[in-house]
Parts: sequence; C-alpha cells; structure tokens
Amino acid sequence: MEFRNIILPTSEIPQKWYNIAADLPSPMNPPLNPATGKPLAPEDLAPIFPMNIIEQEVSQQRFIDIPEEVLEKYLIWRPTPLCRARGLENALKTPAKIYYKNEGVSPPGSHKPNTAIAQAYYNKIFGTKKIYTETGAGQWGSALAFACSLFGLECEVFMVKISYNQKPYRRMMMEVWGATCFASPSNLTKAGRTILEKDPDSPGSLGVAISEAVEKAVTSETSRYALGSVLNHVMLHQTIIGLEAKKQLAAAGDYPDVIIGCAGGGSNFAGTCLPFIREKIAGKEIKLLAVEPTSCPTLTKGPFTYDFGDTAGLTPLLPMYTLGHNFTPEPIHAGGLRYHGMAPIVSKLISDQLVTPLAIEQMETFAAGITWARTEGFISAPEANHAIAAVIREANQAREEGKEKVILFTWSGHGLLDMAAYDAYLSKKLSDHAMPEELLNQSLAQLKGLPTI
Amino acid sequence: MEFRNIILPTSEIPQKWYNIAADLPSPMNPPLNPATGKPLAPEDLAPIFPMNIIEQEVSQQRFIDIPEEVLEKYLIWRPTPLCRARGLENALKTPAKIYYKNEGVSPPGSHKPNTAIAQAYYNKIFGTKKIYTETGAGQWGSALAFACSLFGLECEVFMVKISYNQKPYRRMMMEVWGATCFASPSNLTKAGRTILEKDPDSPGSLGVAISEAVEKAVTSETSRYALGSVLNHVMLHQTIIGLEAKKQLAAAGDYPDVIIGCAGGGSNFAGTCLPFIREKIAGKEIKLLAVEPTSCPTLTKGPFTYDFGDTAGLTPLLPMYTLGHNFTPEPIHAGGLRYHGMAPIVSKLISDQLVTPLAIEQMETFAAGITWARTEGFISAPEANHAIAAVIREANQAREEGKEKVILFTWSGHGLLDMAAYDAYLSKKLSDHAMPEELLNQSLAQLKGLPTI
Repeated sequence: MEFRNIILPTSEIPQKWYNIAADLPSPMNPPLNPATGKPLAPEDLAPIFPMNIIEQEVSQQRFIDIPEEVLEKYLIWRPTPLCRARGLENALKTPAKIYYKNEGVSPPGSHKPNTAIAQAYYNKIFGTKKIYTETGAGQWGSALAFACSLFGLECEVFMVKISYNQKPYRRMMMEVWGATCFASPSNLTKAGRTILEKDPDSPGSLGVAISEAVEKAVTSETSRYALGSVLNHVMLHQTIIGLEAKKQLAAAGDYPDVIIGCAGGGSNFAGTCLPFIREKIAGKEIKLLAVEPTSCPTLTKGPFTYDFGDTAGLTPLLPMYTLGHNFTPEPIHAGGLRYHGMAPIVSKLISDQLVTPLAIEQMETFAAGITWARTEGFISAPEANHAIAAVIREANQAREEGKEKVILFTWSGHGLLDMAAYDAYLSKKLSDHAMPEELLNQSLAQLKGLPTI
Repeated sequence: MEFRNIILPTSEIPQKWYNIAADLPSPMNPPLNPATGKPLAPEDLAPIFPMNIIEQEVSQQRFIDIPEEVLEKYLIWRPTPLCRARGLENALKTPAKIYYKNEGVSPPGSHKPNTAIAQAYYNKIFGTKKIYTETGAGQWGSALAFACSLFGLECEVFMVKISYNQKPYRRMMMEVWGATCFASPSNLTKAGRTILEKDPDSPGSLGVAISEAVEKAVTSETSRYALGSVLNHVMLHQTIIGLEAKKQLAAAGDYPDVIIGCAGGGSNFAGTCLPFIREKIAGKEIKLLAVEPTSCPTLTKGPFTYDFGDTAGLTPLLPMYTLGHNFTPEPIHAGGLRYHGMAPIVSKLISDQLVTPLAIEQMETFAAGITWARTEGFISAPEANHAIAAVIREANQAREEGKEKVILFTWSGHGLLDMAAYDAYLSKKLSDHAMPEELLNQSLAQLKGLPTI
C-alpha cells in the first residue's frame, strides 16, 4: 500500500513562525507616508492596528514564538496533511512526484485562519474588543469571524455589496460564528454614505469596503482593523504552512525542486515558499512559481513601484508590483486573485529574481480543476486551480524530459462555495480574460506622480 | 500544549471491515419477497446489485478484507482525525471527555464515500459500466459520483426534483465529478412518466427516485443500482469509522462510556457503533444512543415489523422499525434523517436493547450546532447537530453528577452546503416539528396486512 498523506504528529507542530526579513539579501524598501513621502513610523499605524502586531510588521527577528494560545487554536485543524497526488500523477503519466499541502481542512476552508487566529489573539491581549475588516468574496471575512468567535471578540465585516448579494453563504457563515456582516457601501460610515449619495445602487468595491472598515476601526480606543493579506505580519503567520511542509517532505525523504502557489495578495504563496526561500538564498536550487490570472497580471505586466494598497488611496504607499490602485479586473471567478497589487515581501523576492511569476488564462485553470476533482477527489477553490494548472504544466514537462522532479504546492482552499463558477464552466459560459494592452497602459498611467523605487 | 487530534498513521488504517452478523446474540430476520412472503433468495437481487455485493449482504464472516484498490482510494482522506472537543468541554464546564470522529474531511464532505468507494469498486470488478442511484438532498448522490469518477464508471443520479431545484450546488458537485443528474420524476422512465402524467409539477419523492433508478438499472446487463444506507453491506463498509476510532481512543488511553450518532437510514451510527457493540455483547458496559428527529420518530414511535424500503413498495420487505413506507416527514432541514424506516441491523440492535433510541426537536439541534461552531469551529451538517445535541445533554449530566465520562460521537459531515438552514434558524424562521399522534396513527395503519416479526 503506497502512502498518500504524510501526517505530522501534534507534538511536531512548528512552535515559531519564520521571518524572512532576517535573511533577505538586501533590506526592503520602507512603506511611505503619502502625506510626507517619508518612511512610515510605527506610531502612524497605531490607531489602525494594535501595537503588538505593528511590532511584528517591522520585526527583523528570524524566528518569532507562536503563542501557546494561538497553537491551541491551530490544533483544531493543524498540522494540515501533506498529500501525494498519486491520482493526478497516474493520469498525467508523469515521473514527477506531486505533493500538495491541504489548507482546505480548516473550518472556514482555506489558509486564511492561520493569520486570523494570530491577529485575533494579539488584538485580544492588546485589549481590543471589536475588530473591523472588509471582505470581497468572503474567504477572509469568514476566517476572521471564526477566529473572533474562538477568542470572544466582536467582529464586524464590510462585504462588497455585489458579493453580499450573490454569495449569501459566506455571509451566513460569518453570522453562524457570531459576526455582523454589512453590505458595502453602507450608510454606517461617511465613506459609504458619500458613495451612496452619488450612486444608491453602487455594487461596492474592495477599496470602499476597506475605507468603511478603517473609518469605523479608528473611532474607538477598543476597536481595531485587520487585514487578511499583503502586510508583512500576515506573511509571517502563514509561514506555518511551509514550516510544516518542510518537516513532512523530510519525513517522506524528499525535497522540492519546484514550489508553486497562486498569488493574489501573496499570503498563501509566501506562507509556503518563505521557509524554502531561506534555503534558496543559502544556495539550494529551487524553482519558485507565483501564479496569477492573465486578467490581473500584477507580477507579469506591472512595474515594481510605490502604490496605495487600496483603491481609495487611504493606506500608506507600499513598495510592490502593481497595476495601479484604481484597476478593476475583469470579473473572473478567482475573487482572491483580483488584487491590483502584491505583498511587498513577495514583490521584493520577484524583483530579486528569487521567485518567477507566471500568468495563466481562466479556462486553463478550470480545466485543471476538473482534472483535479476527477483524479484527486477534492473540489478546489478557483484560486487554487491556478496553482494546479501550473503544476500540470510542470508535470507534463517532467514527462517530456523524463525527469523525476519533486513538485510541492499549496492547495489553498476548497471550492464547495464556488460551485456556480464550475457550473458556468461546464455549461460553456466562461471565457478567457487576458488584460488588453490598452487597458494596461491606461491603468498604469495613474501611477504618475507617486514615488518610485 | 494539550493534544486535540489523534492521528492514525497511514500504515495503521484497518485492513478489514467488521461484520456484526457473526456476533449477534440471535440471527436476524430475513428480508422477504413481497410476492411470495418467503425469505428472499440472493438470486432475487441479481438484476439490481452485482453478485459480489449480494454475497457481502448475506455474509456471516466476522471480518472481511478491504480490497487493496479500496484502501488506496480511502487513503485520499482516511484515516480521518479523531478529535478531542476541548472547546466545547470548556464551554460546558463538564468533566466529560468528548471525542468526535471527523468524517467531514472526505471530498464530498460526509461519511457516505466509505461505502460509495467500496460499491463502485465491486461494481467495477463485476463488470458494471454504469451505476444508477437516487438522492434526496444530494449527499449520497455526490458521494457516489465522486467514487465512480475515481474508478472510471458512469454514474446517473435521480435527484428529488424539489431538492434539484432548491439545492443546485449538490447537483453541480456531481457534474464536476462527471456524473449526470436528473430531476425526478423525469420522463426517462415509466415510473417517472406515470407520475408526470398525473401531476406535471410533482415535486418528487425519494420513493419515486428509487423507482426510476431501479427501473433504469435493470434494463442492461452492464448497469446496476446502488443504495447509500439501510442494507447490511453498507453498514459493513461504514465500520471503518468505528475500527479507526477504537485504535485512536486506545492511543489516547481512553475507552467510551457513551457512543452517540444520528440515525436516518442508520449507516453513520452503525459504522461507529458496530465494532464497539461486539464488545458490549461480550460484556463491556457502553451506552449507545441513536438520535433521530421528533418529526421522524422511527425508533421511538414506530413498531419493529416488516415494511418496504421505498415509498412505492418495489423493494423486498425488510425487518425494521418503521413509520410506514408512505410516511412523508415534515420538512425539517436534516434531510438525511427523513427516512420512514431504519437499517435492519440497527433495528435488531434496538429490539435487542443493545442500543437506546432518542428523539430530539429541531430547535435544540440547531442551538447545539451554533454552540459547536462557536466553540469547536466547524459548521456541522444538520444531521450531525442531532448527535451534538445529545452529546451536550450527556456532558451536562456528567457535570451535574460530577462524573468523568468518555463520550464518542461521529461528526458525520460538514454543513457548508446547508447554510440556508442556519440562516433560517438565526432569522427565527425555524420551529419544532414533533410528529402529531393522529398523523402517527394514520401512518402506522398502512402497515396492516404486511407480515410481522
């Protein structure tokens, strides 16, 4: 009987997160205060985030202890299985060994709670009573609602109105976990009311939802804001994925030649890769692929420069690959990959040529998802299908070259609440959506006048 | 750091199913041919099931080898975790230790694939090319679609029309796995056409869907029918749950004082309990609770007698607790518990007083589900909430009595596709639905004239 799942005993769960800042070949560019153009001071963020999280955001310490209380909650679903995709290997007749880290086993169904639990904990000990956040399709909002329910914190989520109406199951999940979910734009904030006055039927956007959540968070000493991707502390918390995977691969006697992840804001990709990138920097040969949709080609078509994290221009300026903060991607179904920018850490690694970006068309990703479901059984989130499509390309290449490569990727979440997207694909209602050159040029024009790197 | 999950290494997965028939204190009553009133001969079932499955249905062998090819597929998600529900224990301030076997980690999200994989395999080696089945809310249909996709079998599912329209996600899951799903009644069968002629807008029923699936299955030498619960071979395949749980509890140094499961057709309950019932028969003191809804009180209000397995009266007569084969329960949300009868094996155990039945109201089960989600994180299927409600009662009693009981139950599946039911509960649109005495008497009257035990 050949093994499939490599299980890490509870006692072997990593006790520290890994901070790549300690090992980068050169320091990262600092975030800038847009008003002054000067590097942001930690105090500038104090009304938005609790100080213990701000300290993590700027920390240079290589390993950071995972608090006991966070580990306890992680154990609800962690360590997650590392699985050998033997069904896919057989179907592709590839000599490659394909391993996937199954992050879909968490209660909300994705890797997002790795940071949601940590952020809820740090807010709790800081004294925060209520956390505000925004969510697009609902993955992050439901992860934070779950985390807050375990720590007894209040949670209010501004959900982009079009998703609020079209994807009611994610809202219901948040409510089961005791959170309150508002359609954004709402009339609860000045930002929301301003939009609604101009357009009462506004479908909302992530940018507006962020503005609403931040506006509410800063109104009270005991409330704060939480972000589910992009920032350094989020990447830090997600390294639990790669740290576990490394131990599990070692138990299987393997080491990855290729590591693949989909990249929207960058958190699942970074979580898997960072512990291995440390070894790549130290000399190991590993190919690292960050996969994005052709409809939102941040890494493959955008410049590495300073831009706002949100559409409304309220955040600090972040050093990242970006398509411009006003860019609204085509409505592809991988909602988690429709972000104009990219985590500064991931951007830095690409700029340093430690990570290779790859853009894939929507139809290829859904075809990959169907192949996966029919060979490996699990139904993937559309985001994860981007990683699977790249894995299939690599495995086919291994067959053509007759090479026994070891491929590792993160299966970032299940697609059980994305069935409508599969239905559209199977009914031939989907198509490719590569970003047209003209739209790209228009979008990049908005970066004029912002500081460059 | 206290443990939560007890993981069984891949190498420790049970290699045999356990057959309770070998250990029952007295033999089971045989199924009867309704035309003759005589015990059914195995050949009578040959047009419907493959002979290797019929042999298992009547086997008296205590342990039956799990074929290598079935084990290989089980390893996609098995062994499943046995988890300690520390969050719930703390919330209830109970001295009881609560363990749950997490069957929600399978690709379709429930325990159903334990038998779907086995049935697909036996059909495959028998020479079946296409399997027909029916499904109500879609759990069984999606499990069989998943299993058939892994073995390269065609699968056609007749789904009760009202569910087909109201629960499109389950249909889409079946299609992702390559199955074809029809709304029943359909015009593909005589049974369906007869209904549609009388009532073109018929919402369908499980009884009609079974008739359609069986009618299609018997038309070809290379097609067969599959059932997801009730029959002996289904209970057999599900014993993998209890066999794993027993090893895991032993690893934790515990043995159950109480075992709890929800019971619709009886398969998840039997799967967990049967390996322990063997030891109860041999003298161990264990309390076994089969939990059903008050709206479908088969075990607590029905007699133990012969009845048809389906509404249309096409199946053999089975010895079981039943409310009468024409009984249509109130529309509670735990679709998997709305069956008029009960597996003959489970019925026999209740009749022999080895298992205690317990009926719980809908509102208590949803309250239990919310408590579970906010303490343990996972969102449960409404069926599993029946087990959780009983667990909470036992744990509260342990607190009152100051007893350190060990409670084991099967968390039979997640509720991610049942969010609308939670939404109705949180919006105060649900209510209790105990079966009225008058309806019970009416329903039981239809058993007149059928053989008794």
